[in-house]
Amino acid sequence: SAPISRCKLNGILERLNAGEVVIGDGGFVFALEKRGYVKAGPWTPEASVQYPDAVRQLHREFLRAGSNVMQTFTFYASDDKLENRGNNLKLTGAQINEAACDLAREVANEGDALVAGGVSQTPSYLSCKSKADVKAIFRKQLDVFIKKNVDFLIAEYFEHVEEAVWAVEVMKETGKPVAASLCIGPKGDMHGVSPGECAVRLVKAGAQIVGVNCHFDPMTCVETVKQMKVGVEKAGLKAHYMVQPLAYHTPDCNCQGFIDLPEFPFGLEPRILTRWDMHKYAREAYNAGIRFIGGCCGFEAYHIRAIAEELAPERGFLPSASEKHGSWGAGLEMHTKPWVRARARRDYWENLKPASGRPQCPSMSVPDSWGVTKGHADLMQQKEATSKEELEQLFDKSKTH
Amino acid sequence: SAPISRCKLNGILERLNAGEVVIGDGGFVFALEKRGYVKAGPWTPEASVQYPDAVRQLHREFLRAGSNVMQTFTFYASDDKLENRGNNLKLTGAQINEAACDLAREVANEGDALVAGGVSQTPSYLSCKSKADVKAIFRKQLDVFIKKNVDFLIAEYFEHVEEAVWAVEVMKETGKPVAASLCIGPKGDMHGVSPGECAVRLVKAGAQIVGVNCHFDPMTCVETVKQMKVGVEKAGLKAHYMVQPLAYHTPDCNCQGFIDLPEFPFGLEPRILTRWDMHKYAREAYNAGIRFIGGCCGFEAYHIRAIAEELAPERGFLPSASEKHGSWGAGLEMHTKPWVRARARRDYWENLKPASGRPQCPSMSVPDSWGVTKGHADLMQQKEATSKEELEQLFDKSKTH
Amino acid sequence: SAPISRCKLNGILERLNAGEVVIGDGGFVFALEKRGYVKAGPWTPEASVQYPDAVRQLHREFLRAGSNVMQTFTFYASDDKLENRGNNLKLTGAQINEAACDLAREVANEGDALVAGGVSQTPSYLSCKSKADVKAIFRKQLDVFIKKNVDFLIAEYFEHVEEAVWAVEVMKETGKPVAASLCIGPKGDMHGVSPGECAVRLVKAGAQIVGVNCHFDPMTCVETVKQMKVGVEKAGLKAHYMVQPLAYHTPDCNCQGFIDLPEFPFGLEPRILTRWDMHKYAREAYNAGIRFIGGCCGFEAYHIRAIAEELAPERGFLPSASEKHGSWGAGLEMHTKPWVRARARRDYWENLKPASGRPQCPSMSVPDSWGVTKGHADLMQQKEATSKEELEQLFDKSKTH
Amino acid sequence: SAPISRCKLNGILERLNAGEVVIGDGGFVFALEKRGYVKAGPWTPEASVQYPDAVRQLHREFLRAGSNVMQTFTFYASDDKLENRGNNLKLTGAQINEAACDLAREVANEGDALVAGGVSQTPSYLSCKSKADVKAIFRKQLDVFIKKNVDFLIAEYFEHVEEAVWAVEVMKETGKPVAASLCIGPKGDMHGVSPGECAVRLVKAGAQIVGVNCHFDPMTCVETVKQMKVGVEKAGLKAHYMVQPLAYHTPDCNCQGFIDLPEFPFGLEPRILTRWDMHKYAREAYNAGIRFIGGCCGFEAYHIRAIAEELAPERGFLPSASEKHGSWGAGLEMHTKPWVRARARRDYWENLKPASGRPQCPSMSVPDSWGVTKGHADLMQQKEATSKEELEQLFDKSKTH
Repeated sequence: SAPISRCKLNGILERLNAGEVVIGDGGFVFALEKRGYVKAGPWTPEASVQYPDAVRQLHREFLRAGSNVMQTFTFYASDDKLENRGNNLKLTGAQINEAACDLAREVANEGDALVAGGVSQTPSYLSCKSKADVKAIFRKQLDVFIKKNVDFLIAEYFEHVEEAVWAVEVMKETGKPVAASLCIGPKGDMHGVSPGECAVRLVKAGAQIVGVNCHFDPMTCVETVKQMKVGVEKAGLKAHYMVQPLAYHTPDCNCQGFIDLPEFPFGLEPRILTRWDMHKYAREAYNAGIRFIGGCCGFEAYHIRAIAEELAPERGFLPSASEKHGSWGAGLEMHTKPWVRARARRDYWENLKPASGRPQCPSMSVPDSWGVTKGHADLMQQKEATSKEELEQLFDKSKTH
Repeated sequence: SAPISRCKLNGILERLNAGEVVIGDGGFVFALEKRGYVKAGPWTPEASVQYPDAVRQLHREFLRAGSNVMQTFTFYASDDKLENRGNNLKLTGAQINEAACDLAREVANEGDALVAGGVSQTPSYLSCKSKADVKAIFRKQLDVFIKKNVDFLIAEYFEHVEEAVWAVEVMKETGKPVAASLCIGPKGDMHGVSPGECAVRLVKAGAQIVGVNCHFDPMTCVETVKQMKVGVEKAGLKAHYMVQPLAYHTPDCNCQGFIDLPEFPFGLEPRILTRWDMHKYAREAYNAGIRFIGGCCGFEAYHIRAIAEELAPERGFLPSASEKHGSWGAGLEMHTKPWVRARARRDYWENLKPASGRPQCPSMSVPDSWGVTKGHADLMQQKEATSKEELEQLFDKSKTH
Repeated sequence: SAPISRCKLNGILERLNAGEVVIGDGGFVFALEKRGYVKAGPWTPEASVQYPDAVRQLHREFLRAGSNVMQTFTFYASDDKLENRGNNLKLTGAQINEAACDLAREVANEGDALVAGGVSQTPSYLSCKSKADVKAIFRKQLDVFIKKNVDFLIAEYFEHVEEAVWAVEVMKETGKPVAASLCIGPKGDMHGVSPGECAVRLVKAGAQIVGVNCHFDPMTCVETVKQMKVGVEKAGLKAHYMVQPLAYHTPDCNCQGFIDLPEFPFGLEPRILTRWDMHKYAREAYNAGIRFIGGCCGFEAYHIRAIAEELAPERGFLPSASEKHGSWGAGLEMHTKPWVRARARRDYWENLKPASGRPQCPSMSVPDSWGVTKGHADLMQQKEATSKEELEQLFDKSKTH
Repeated sequence: SAPISRCKLNGILERLNAGEVVIGDGGFVFALEKRGYVKAGPWTPEASVQYPDAVRQLHREFLRAGSNVMQTFTFYASDDKLENRGNNLKLTGAQINEAACDLAREVANEGDALVAGGVSQTPSYLSCKSKADVKAIFRKQLDVFIKKNVDFLIAEYFEHVEEAVWAVEVMKETGKPVAASLCIGPKGDMHGVSPGECAVRLVKAGAQIVGVNCHFDPMTCVETVKQMKVGVEKAGLKAHYMVQPLAYHTPDCNCQGFIDLPEFPFGLEPRILTRWDMHKYAREAYNAGIRFIGGCCGFEAYHIRAIAEELAPERGFLPSASEKHGSWGAGLEMHTKPWVRARARRDYWENLKPASGRPQCPSMSVPDSWGVTKGHADLMQQKEATSKEELEQLFDKSKTH
C-alpha cells in the first residue's frame, strides 16, 4: 500500500511547475463559527489571538487530511474591516495577522505544507476609496506576512477584478509567489468582466496562479476556472490554476453566489456535499488541468481527505487521515448487518442519491436580491433603506400586493 | 443581558431534583470521524490515547456551547468490542477508558460540567453470552470510572432493554447516580418491548434517569421519551428523563433507526439539522418534561449552543459560545446587502424551508433491511453470506429480476 | 393474444360470487370539471341534463378502458344538496337523476357493463336532521333508480358510517343488490369508528359489498379495505369488497383525506398517479382479496385501462382501449431515437421515479385544518367566522405572530 | 359582468392585425391517448375516422374553453408517416385528413373559431429525401385542406427550420394565411440555427405568423419566441407571433426537449401545469407581444380556459366554460370547511407551491440521450444498435462499470 507521508521539498511554484497536485485547506470561518469561535456576520478572525488552540486544531485537521497549504487565518483581517465591524477587543490587525502566521507556520512544519498569507477584498474598495488607499490597506497585512516569512501570497475572495489586480500589484512588490483567486462564477465579476478576461488581467498584473474560491459549488467553480484557462491560453499567456469552492450545492445561485440564497448563512446544512461528491469534484478539477485544488466555506477535514484519496493514484500516496478511513466505505466490511456490509463498495456510494429527510422543503430556492427578485422589485425604486426597521417595513409591504 | 457563566454547585441528581435544565454534549464518533480521528465501521475511541488534543478540543467546544455533562469518550470501548474490531494498536480497554476519563475531567473542571462515564451495548450480549459474562464486561469499564471518580454513570445506546437492565444492575453496585438510555424509537426495543415498559424496567433496576439516544431524529426521540414517561407514571414510579437524539432528519426510518437508511453513514449530510431545528427540539423536549437534553451522532457544538440559547430564558443565562453568536441571526444586522440584513430576525429563520440544492435526489429514502425491502427478499432464503463478494453477488442477483 | 371483448352475462353479485374481477369506472366530477362541465365547489351533476354528449363520452371512455360498472352521474344530486348549492337552473333532482340513468344505461348496453345507481352523503345528515328526514332524501333518488331499473345500488362517499347504514337500510327496501363505500382511511370514520367496525355495521345493515372510495390514495384505501375485511371475518360475517380510491398520491393526509391538503382542489396535478402506479394498485387490491376495483376523483380512462391490463392474466382478456396501447410501453419500440426505444420495457417503467419538474416545491404538504395546524390555532378560540372577509382577517392575523 | 360569447368576424390575420388575442387549442394526441383513441409511439390521428365522436368532443371542450382556432387533427397524417408506422387500418392519408377537416369545421361553426389545417415534420425529410419529394408530401395534405376550405394553414412541430421553410413555400402557393411553428428551444433548431435566425428565414419564406410549439414548457417557449421577435425586428421584418407550449414543467430538458426526459411519455404526470401556472404563462406571453396563444401536448380544456380567464380583461369577455368556473377559486366560497373557504382567493393559489406527494422521487431528471449522458457514453462508439435486444444489452453493459 501507498506510503502515508512524504518529505517537504519545494515552494509552491516548484511543485506546480513539476506537475504536482497541491491540495489546499478548507473553510476556517464556517468551521470555526460552528465550533463557537467566529461570529457569523462580521466573520472576523480574532480567534487567532483569542482561541489559538481551536485555530491550531483546525489547521492540524486539514494537514492530516492532506492539505499542502496552511492559509493564515486572516480573512477580513484588514484594518478597515476590523474597525468597520466593531472589533471591540482592542486587537489591532497586526496582532491578529501575526498570531495567524505563527499558528499556520507551527502546523505547516509538522508536515508537508507551505504557509500562504492571504488578503481579501476590503471595505475601502467598496466605499470607493482611491487606488492608493486600498493598496495601503493591503500593504499593512503584507508587512506582517513578510516579517513572518510566509511561503507565498494569495489574494482571494475578490468580487471585482480591479481590486484583485491592485492587490496583486502590491503583492508583487514583495518578491513572493502570488496567487489570485476571485469569488466569481461563469458570468464573471460584479462589473461583468468575463472569467477569461479577469484571468488575463491578473496574469498580466503578475499572478503566477489564478483561479476562484467561495461563492459557488465545486462544479460551477471548476467550470469558471476552465473559462479562465481558455482566456489565458487564447491571450498567449501562461499560468497555474487553483480552485477552492464551497462545500455546498448551489445550482440555484444567481451571479452573486450563495450569499443571495435564502439559506445563507444559517440554513445551508441540506446543501453540504458528501465525501463522494468531493471525489467527483477532485477528478473534474484534475481533468480540467487545475493542480491547486482545495476548498472554502463548508469544507471540513473529511472533504479535503476525499480530494486526497481521489487523487492518490496520481500523487502516489494517501493522507495521514486515511489511517482512519476505509476507501469507498471499506470500513463497513465488518458491520454486523449484511445490508450495511453491502454498502462497502464504490458503486454504492458513487450512485447514491442521498435523501434530504425534509419532505416539506424544496430542492431549489429562488435567490434573494435587491431588485432582482420580483418580490423586491418595488424596493428598487426606493432611494435607500438605512435602518433595519425601515427595510423590514419595505420588505413586508412589497409582499402584500 | 444574561450573565455568560455560572458556578458549579451540584451533582446530576441535585440539579434535576431542583428542576434545572442539564444540557448534554454532542456526538463524538461522528464529529471525530469527520475530523480524521475515528474510523467509521469500527467506531472505536482509541483517539483518547492516540490524539488527546483532538478529543480535548471537542470536549471544550461542547463545554463552551453550554454542555453540563462531559461524557467520557468511551463508546464501544469494552474489551470484547475492541478485540472484535481489530484494534491493532495494542491498546487495552483500560488504557483507553482511563485516558478518556482524564480528558473529560480536565475540560469539565474548566467550567460548569459533570463527568459521566458511559458504557454501551456489547458484542457479548449480541452473541448470546451469559448474563454473568456480559456483566463482567461492564464491570471492567466501571472499574476505571470508579478509579477516576466520575460524577455519574450512563448506560447508553442499548437496543435491548434486557442488556440495559444488566448494565444498570452493575452500575448500581458503584453507588454513583445512574442514567439509562436506549437507542429505540416509539415502536420499542428490538424484542418489541414498548418504550413505556422499557422505562419501567430500567427504573425498577435502579436507574434514576431514563431516556433515549441516537438512532432517530429529535422529534421522534422526544415522542419516545414521552411514552416512557407515561409508562413510568402509570406504574406509580418516579424518574428523571433524558434525550440525546441524532442531528439528522429521519422521517423515513423503520424501527431500527438510521442504520438502515441507505445514506448511513457516509451520505447523511442533507439530513443535518439546522440550529433553528434545534431550537424547536429543545422547546419540545422541555415542554415534554425532559430536563437532561443533549445530542448524539451529528450534533456539533453549534447545535448544543442552540439548545442552550432556546432555553436561556428558563435557565437565566447564555452559554460562553454565544459571545460569538447573535441570537436568531442578529449577527447579520450589519451586512452590506440589505436583503441579507433582512434575515436578521426570528421569524425568517423559524419559517425557512431550506432547499437541498439537490434536485435529482429524493426527499425520503426506503430503509434498507434484510428481508424487509423487496430487493433483498431473496437473500432472506440464503443461509449466510460470509464474504463481501458472496454478498454482492447475491445482492446483484436480487436486483435483476 | 387475448380476445378484446366478452359478452354480458350476470349481475354484480353473480360476478363476484363467481370470483370474477369487476372493474369500476373513474371520477366524473373531476374529469368533467377539467373539461368545463362541472363547477368545483358545488360539484353538482346538472351536466347530465345540460351537456349529455359530454357525460356520454366520458362513460364511453371508461367502458372502452374496461369498466364493468357505469355509475349514474348523480353524485350530490339529492334535493337538499342541489338547493343548498344554488342550482339556479331550475332543474329538479328527479330530472338530473333520470337523465343520468338514461346516459349510463345507453353506454352500458354498448358493452359488458352494469348500471349502478349511486347516493352519497347529504347536507341533511350534517345539519343533524332526523333519521327519517335523511332517509326520505335517499328515497327520492332511489325512486328514480328503481323506475329506471338500474342493476344495483351504491351508497358511496360517506364520512359517517351511521348515515351510510341509514342509506343501506333504505336501499335494501328496493330488493336490488347493495354496495356501501365510505370515504374513510385507516383511522376510521369521522366519529372514530374503525374501518373493521364500520364494515361490520354495513354488512349487518344488509350491504353485500363494502369498501371505500375517494379521499385517499390507492395504497391507503387498499389498506383500509383490508382492515374492513379483517373486521368482517372476525365477526363471522361474509361480504364482497370494493375499492375506488383517488388517483392522487396523498402520503401527507390527515384523517379527513385530501380535502385538507393545501392543493385541494386546484393544485393536485403533481400528485396524479401514472398508469404504472395503477398497475401496482390493481395488483395490491387483487392480492388483498378485493374484486370490485375502480377509481374516484382523478381517475381517467387510461388509469382504468391500466387496472384492466394488469389483471388481464386473471381475467383472460384485455379491454377495448388496449387496441391503442402497447403493454408496458411497447408502443415505443419503433421510436426513431434509440434511447426512447429503450423505454419499451416493463422494468423501465416499473422502476422509474418520475421527477416533478418543480424544484421549488416540496414533496409533502402539511394538511390544513381548523385547530390542527399551528397557523390556525388561534382561530379555534374564535366563535365563528361567518364571512369570507372575516375569515381572511383572522387567517392573516394568525400568520403574523 | 362580461358577456360570455361574441360573434365571429374575421380571419386570422384580420384579428391579429387588429391587435386581438387569438387563443389556440390544446394537445390532441396526448389527450386522446389518455382517453383511449390514440396510440403512444405512432401517435397517428386515425381516430378522426375511427372515433369521430371522441375527436368532436375534444374540439368542443377547447371551443368552450375559449379557443379561437380549431386545428385539424392531422398531426403525423402525412402519407409517408402513416405507412412508416404500420397503419394497418387501410386508411389513406386523404381519408384521415378529410375527416379531420370536417370535424374541425363542424365545431368551429358552433362558436367563434377558425379552422387551421396543419402539417408537421416528415419522415421523408429525416431520411434525406429531396426537397421536391418532401414538398410533394406536404402538397398531398394541403390539397385536402384547400378542398375543405380551411381558414388558414399552420406548419408546426418542425425540428429543422429548413424543412419548415419548404413547408411554408408550398403553403404560400395556396394563397391562405400561413403560420409556422418550430418545436425548438432557446438554443435553436437541430442544426444549431438560432431562434432569431429561424424566424427570419420563415418570415422571408412567407409566413405571416411565426413561433414555437411543443417540446418545452411555457416559460421556455415564450423565451424562445421573444428571441424570434428580436431577430425579426433586427432584420427590419414584420410578423405576428404564436406560442403553443407543453403543459409540463421541463426545467431539466436539454436542447431536444421533453422527448429526452426519462418520463416521456408515460410518466409525465408530476410535471403537469396547474391552471394557475397557466395564468402566469398567458400573462408572460401577452407581455412579450405574442397574440396567438395556445397549447400543445398536455394542454386540456381547463388549461385553455385559464388563458382565456387571465386575458379576459384585455379581451373583454370570458369563455363559455367559465360558466362552470369561479375565478381564482371563488367556487370554494361556500365550502363547509372554513379552511377550504379560505382558499377562495387569488393570492392563495398564486403563491401555492404544490407538493408532489412523491417523497421518494427527485424534482429534476437527467435527460437521456445517446452519447450525451455519461451512462450512454460507450454506446456512442458502437456503430448501430438495430434491435431492441441489442440495445438493451449495450445499455445494460454501459451501466455496470
